[in-house]
Amino acid sequence: MNYKMIIHTLGRIFLVEAALLVIPMLVGILYGESNAAAFLIPMGLLLVIGAAAGIRAPKNTTIYAKEGLVIVAMAWILMSLFGAMPFVISGEIPRFVDAFFETVSGFTTTGASILPNVELLSQAMLFWRSFTHWVGGMGVLVFVMAVLPTTDGRAMHLMRAEVPGPTVGKLSSKLRDTAKILYGIYLLLTVTEVVLLLLGGMPLYDALIHSFGSAGTGGFSNKALSVGAYDSVYAEVVISVFMLLFGVNFNLYFLLLCRRFREALLSEELIAYLCVVGAAIVAITWNLTSLMYSFGTSLRYALFQVSSIITTTGYATTDFSSWPELSRAIMVLLMFFGACAGSTGGGLKIARVVILLKTAVQDVRHMIHPHAVSVVRFEKKPLDEKTFRSVHVYFVLYILLFGVSVLLLSLEHFDLITTFTAVASCLNNIGPGLELVGPMGNYSGFSDWGKLLLCWNMLLGRLEIYPILTMMVPLAWRRNRKKR
Amino acid sequence: MNYKMIIHTLGRIFLVEAALLVIPMLVGILYGESNAAAFLIPMGLLLVIGAAAGIRAPKNTTIYAKEGLVIVAMAWILMSLFGAMPFVISGEIPRFVDAFFETVSGFTTTGASILPNVELLSQAMLFWRSFTHWVGGMGVLVFVMAVLPTTDGRAMHLMRAEVPGPTVGKLSSKLRDTAKILYGIYLLLTVTEVVLLLLGGMPLYDALIHSFGSAGTGGFSNKALSVGAYDSVYAEVVISVFMLLFGVNFNLYFLLLCRRFREALLSEELIAYLCVVGAAIVAITWNLTSLMYSFGTSLRYALFQVSSIITTTGYATTDFSSWPELSRAIMVLLMFFGACAGSTGGGLKIARVVILLKTAVQDVRHMIHPHAVSVVRFEKKPLDEKTFRSVHVYFVLYILLFGVSVLLLSLEHFDLITTFTAVASCLNNIGPGLELVGPMGNYSGFSDWGKLLLCWNMLLGRLEIYPILTMMVPLAWRRNRKKR
Repeated sequence: MNYKMIIHTLGRIFLVEAALLVIPMLVGILYGESNAAAFLIPMGLLLVIGAAAGIRAPKNTTIYAKEGLVIVAMAWILMSLFGAMPFVISGEIPRFVDAFFETVSGFTTTGASILPNVELLSQAMLFWRSFTHWVGGMGVLVFVMAVLPTTDGRAMHLMRAEVPGPTVGKLSSKLRDTAKILYGIYLLLTVTEVVLLLLGGMPLYDALIHSFGSAGTGGFSNKALSVGAYDSVYAEVVISVFMLLFGVNFNLYFLLLCRRFREALLSEELIAYLCVVGAAIVAITWNLTSLMYSFGTSLRYALFQVSSIITTTGYATTDFSSWPELSRAIMVLLMFFGACAGSTGGGLKIARVVILLKTAVQDVRHMIHPHAVSVVRFEKKPLDEKTFRSVHVYFVLYILLFGVSVLLLSLEHFDLITTFTAVASCLNNIGPGLELVGPMGNYSGFSDWGKLLLCWNMLLGRLEIYPILTMMVPLAWRRNRKKR
Repeated sequence: MNYKMIIHTLGRIFLVEAALLVIPMLVGILYGESNAAAFLIPMGLLLVIGAAAGIRAPKNTTIYAKEGLVIVAMAWILMSLFGAMPFVISGEIPRFVDAFFETVSGFTTTGASILPNVELLSQAMLFWRSFTHWVGGMGVLVFVMAVLPTTDGRAMHLMRAEVPGPTVGKLSSKLRDTAKILYGIYLLLTVTEVVLLLLGGMPLYDALIHSFGSAGTGGFSNKALSVGAYDSVYAEVVISVFMLLFGVNFNLYFLLLCRRFREALLSEELIAYLCVVGAAIVAITWNLTSLMYSFGTSLRYALFQVSSIITTTGYATTDFSSWPELSRAIMVLLMFFGACAGSTGGGLKIARVVILLKTAVQDVRHMIHPHAVSVVRFEKKPLDEKTFRSVHVYFVLYILLFGVSVLLLSLEHFDLITTFTAVASCLNNIGPGLELVGPMGNYSGFSDWGKLLLCWNMLLGRLEIYPILTMMVPLAWRRNRKKR
């Protein structure tokens, strides 16, 4: 374990976070709020520690996958610890555990909240809360890579640990350029959404907040009723479309930029993603029309909620916890699917679901025709043994951690649906679940350790399990025996 | 597809079922009940069809895995159709769908019932209901193999399709001998349980019913309060121990018979099974003691219910649906674990759970030390790629079918916990779930197609997915193009 390099990288991340804190502070000053000190204190701490640790690089800058995983895990936890300070210092979220929960929920783009009424928060704090979504969506280390010089070998280990999905596509031969391209696309899409929301008459502040929330597929809003507060079909459609766009693999946008349209639009994962979205909207619209609302209202709710849940954003325009059981069950299922690999969304990812399904179908076919040769293909390439293995093992770990978390959280004595969907929602970085943690509820009812358990779930989900698990294994912390 | 051979084998199974129906008829006569005709009609039908189809073997007796799978699936469905007749003809379960549900539940050793009060049934019908557990526990085709002459090549395909678990252990070089040994052990254990229950003062009839139920890990009782009706610690302990014994891989009993004690007792699966049982009992006892009962009562309930659920039997001594959430969550988790491979129990099977966990742990270790060579071992042998693949794909299919079934059953508009645990309970061949389908509830509330969906689940679970799926794929029914 190269401890010096871990400390050095973390130091640089602290400096970036210090810079990020300037923005909400300026928002506060603009609104004439007197909470600048709440941002200055963590900023000062981050600057001092960051400068001490991050300015001089150690002699040996070699890191391996192990260090990459540990750095990413530590970075996310420490950033959340410092990021929680403004809430506590300003007294707007007095308890540290609550503030930590809110910040982890922000960075991991979950959007789960312990606040009974968000509208009580100051503009600066609401802005910071939503801004963490935007930063966490594309990844903190990807950002560090984009803005600070780094070598490729090192960066790959960090990127692989932070970017979701079974494989990391290098868009450019240089990883630093890849990071820049990704952030460029991300910024462009976000700005477009802000402009479109402004055109629909939404105030600039609200447009920014909701664009951050959809870009990161997070889901924090500055309204207690979430997007439902605007009661505007235009805003709902814009946000739905953008949530879906941010749930697409960013590599496809890069292909579009390179004018490789065919390749981008025929992506197997994209087609599967759109099919699932379409099928879910049709099924829920049918279910709601036959039991609750008119066709138009049903379609409107279904479009928004399906987009919100499958992309793991978590915005709400209605209390889907009170929907009929079929629609509720579909929503829970969508929670596990998640968006595309390489997007800002969470969950299992469509790519993994497709690979799991295809191998299962092939297996049944093999049962029937044991001598027929058949190869599973994904995105037109034959699926190699390594990807097969990694996707299947990931699935097992995912279900296992899900089961363990439900078991532990059931010590809280809430009803099983609340417990089950709270874990599903946090592990998949969505935000709302059903019953007590439904769109109109919140997470304030859990005890401190229940909240910390859910923080662990959010981090596990956003970083795709391995970084957090690696960090928890004492073996990983041992010094490397011999220099390689 | 060798259709002639399929029909021939099914014919022979019909003859066996006709013979099996004699026993409950005799019970009815013994009790002076006037429902002999209810058994005679299906018996006559089975004899005529069975004789026509089963007596003369076709020229080409070659069958492949595909035929084996289809035969097993068809046999179980047809046996349940004929087995349901006595209930309908006698008028004791007037609707055919209900009777079919009850019979599928019997043969698949699920123990789920649509009867609000079992005590209204006649002795003959109750006996038949429980006797199907005993027959289904070890497998109908294994029985056919044990009593009728057959060749080894053919038998292997049938046995592999019917006996649960990732691998089929051949106990003897001849499969027919294996089937005889298995049934011998099964019979011996059942008789022992009957004797022990008699010694505790249980009437012979009740002792037989409850021994059938625990031997097949089924769970049908002749009392509305299930085993709780006796309020006898002795009976509960005997039944608990025997449920656990029937949840052990029968190969281990064979090893014991061969005096290979070390090998049998050091079985990795057995140790894991006992550890899970022990941990669950401790956790539930602690949970119940701190919230509901005295330590003694808690331990008594925990021992019985854990044994009943992990072995997928489903007997109840208390309404565990009203337990605190942690205990309820543990029960739901145990439903998925199931008993050991090669036992009469259902579920995912401990062997698979252990293999899944071990590959996951190895993967995390590999992340930390990419260059270290590590091999996953199970039962002291290195795990080959084929077993790895089959266990992982099985897990995916299992979760997939579970999700699809929950989605479809949620059309019934019951609460999500009822829907979720009804599917979990049927797919894992347990019997009771939580809420409406809890130990004190039943399945009568579901519509006809909901009941058929659950029948499909029970068959999928008992036959470990592949036979039923193969039967449903039109491709499998095509004639073989060329003779191999």
